[in-house]
Amino acid sequence: MNHNFLLLIGFIVLLSCKNDLKDDSRHVKDPLKISKTQENFGIVIHGGAGTILKENMSDSLENAYQEKLKEAITVGHRILKNGGTAMQAVTKTINIMEDSPLFNAGKGAVFTHNETNELDASVMDGSTLNAGAVTGISRVKNPINLALAVMEQSPHVMLSGKGAETFAEEKGFLLVDPSYFFTNKRFNQLQKIKAREKENTIGATFEDPFIKDSKFGTVGCAALDKHGNLAAGTSTGGMTNKRWNRIGDAPIIGAGTYANNATCAISSTGWGEFFIRGMVAYDISAMMEYKGLSLQEAASEVIQKKNPALGGTGGVVSIDKDGNVAMEFNTAGMYRAHMNSEGELVVGIYKNE
Amino acid sequence: MNHNFLLLIGFIVLLSCKNDLKDDSRHVKDPLKISKTQENFGIVIHGGAGTILKENMSDSLENAYQEKLKEAITVGHRILKNGGTAMQAVTKTINIMEDSPLFNAGKGAVFTHNETNELDASVMDGSTLNAGAVTGISRVKNPINLALAVMEQSPHVMLSGKGAETFAEEKGFLLVDPSYFFTNKRFNQLQKIKAREKENTIGATFEDPFIKDSKFGTVGCAALDKHGNLAAGTSTGGMTNKRWNRIGDAPIIGAGTYANNATCAISSTGWGEFFIRGMVAYDISAMMEYKGLSLQEAASEVIQKKNPALGGTGGVVSIDKDGNVAMEFNTAGMYRAHMNSEGELVVGIYKNE
Repeated sequence: MNHNFLLLIGFIVLLSCKNDLKDDSRHVKDPLKISKTQENFGIVIHGGAGTILKENMSDSLENAYQEKLKEAITVGHRILKNGGTAMQAVTKTINIMEDSPLFNAGKGAVFTHNETNELDASVMDGSTLNAGAVTGISRVKNPINLALAVMEQSPHVMLSGKGAETFAEEKGFLLVDPSYFFTNKRFNQLQKIKAREKENTIGATFEDPFIKDSKFGTVGCAALDKHGNLAAGTSTGGMTNKRWNRIGDAPIIGAGTYANNATCAISSTGWGEFFIRGMVAYDISAMMEYKGLSLQEAASEVIQKKNPALGGTGGVVSIDKDGNVAMEFNTAGMYRAHMNSEGELVVGIYKNE
Repeated sequence: MNHNFLLLIGFIVLLSCKNDLKDDSRHVKDPLKISKTQENFGIVIHGGAGTILKENMSDSLENAYQEKLKEAITVGHRILKNGGTAMQAVTKTINIMEDSPLFNAGKGAVFTHNETNELDASVMDGSTLNAGAVTGISRVKNPINLALAVMEQSPHVMLSGKGAETFAEEKGFLLVDPSYFFTNKRFNQLQKIKAREKENTIGATFEDPFIKDSKFGTVGCAALDKHGNLAAGTSTGGMTNKRWNRIGDAPIIGAGTYANNATCAISSTGWGEFFIRGMVAYDISAMMEYKGLSLQEAASEVIQKKNPALGGTGGVVSIDKDGNVAMEFNTAGMYRAHMNSEGELVVGIYKNE
């Protein structure tokens, strides 16, 4: 009798333990942090938008862009396939583009009016809504890594200039000499734009298509990982011939970069001033959340209607929580690539391809 | 008979003219630029939010805050009453608060970790969706005026540091010596926080209520003018003891400041990092535009629910296109005032008053 009673007690304890476990799984404190295990991952990148026309492009240069986009996205895709995080995929993919002189970010950064290079970058983690950004730095080889360090290792979201570089040193970043960012191609672009500017009246300068295109070339990435988490990042040298320590949209959370597990992850590229005024990245997310639009509908509404109505040109790459991708731009071209969980790759440069 | 016929023709011509006029008014090219003449104007300001408790406040200090808020808002109200623009009211009102050592903006700006003052400001015009912002400046007496100059006199939205000061000089601003911003009160606050920081572990620092409150004190203003145009502006010294050229939400369009004639004008004050991540100012506008919420509903949703869910504390002042006002905060207090077209004044400091 005593023995049976003990067995019964033991059985009841076991049952209640099982219920406790069930309850725990149902009452996760922060729903944003739930890690679903799913195989539906994906990654999308851009290397800038602008007046990119096939007739102005040599076959070898076109090939170089396609190969570099493919190399970059493959790195991120491999990380995602192996169960890595969206943020790891975003930053490692962007590193490849930052290290290439083809893009206006890292090694290929454009020159300011004072013939220096001032780089900007930002990241956002859709699972925590945490973010990091840096602006106006001249001595960090991979600005996107510093943006990530700001997010992970500081209580701040955005650091700038010399202060951001001091933070980098404190966190063990090896600083490069500013001359690391010198490339003949970008230096010559600056000289051409300065000469062109002299020929123009001040009012006409910004309408000159050649000068207008000097605003573009940012790189960016958005990814969905196997755990159902989204992340986005953007890195740039800004606008050729920029003055007065101008800050564009790339380091502005909500303008250049946004990620939220509830909606999508986005990286922008374009005429930064209009992307700031339109809060482009967050606006796409807000339209999904508040109006129930799909990612493609929201991206199209913002990039094809709202932004041009202000006067803005450029584009975005974005991926939603279900792996749907939108690569939307209102310029002649945008360097872009997308790779889904099946490993299917799409690389594009011009419109209608 | 002929005479009657001529009269009839004249009458028909008159009628068609009237119709033409009607048609013109219906086909205005840019609805954002319509200038309605209406008498329903208003203005709302804040001087920062935080742990502001009656038991910690002397009668004379409380009175000083109330008088300065009243003085500032009266300046803006007079401008609006006399037919001035919302942007004129916003900047002139903020100037009064910038020139007072009571608030963390202009003359009363807090100190950085390096014992300097780095000021930020931004403005946005709801009729054009144009905007201007400056960050990390140390030599411009009224940063809000420089933000306005960036909007009106540069092709950019955001300038920073030394570059922004060079721009200021080029545009005829008289630069002050950085020592202009020295006040004993703010310098002592920095020393206290540094001492407190030494006693704490690094992890606990940001949880210390004393240090937490060092993040607050920004000033801001939102206004609706007689022409139906909205504008908003924000000015701050940032966060006491800030390092690494940190940028908070005040100079970020969409986070610290937003204005759109279609919805509302907003200025934020609070823990900047969370206001950036939540895109607080634009989010309120987006909820009105996309979800059809009223200004009060949207401000309450963002400040009482979404922002605290992230961990953020602070508040906003805002006015919509119909003159409705929301002064919403999730802290113990927020220095605030509102004045409507009838000249009725509301001044508040603590909760529930």
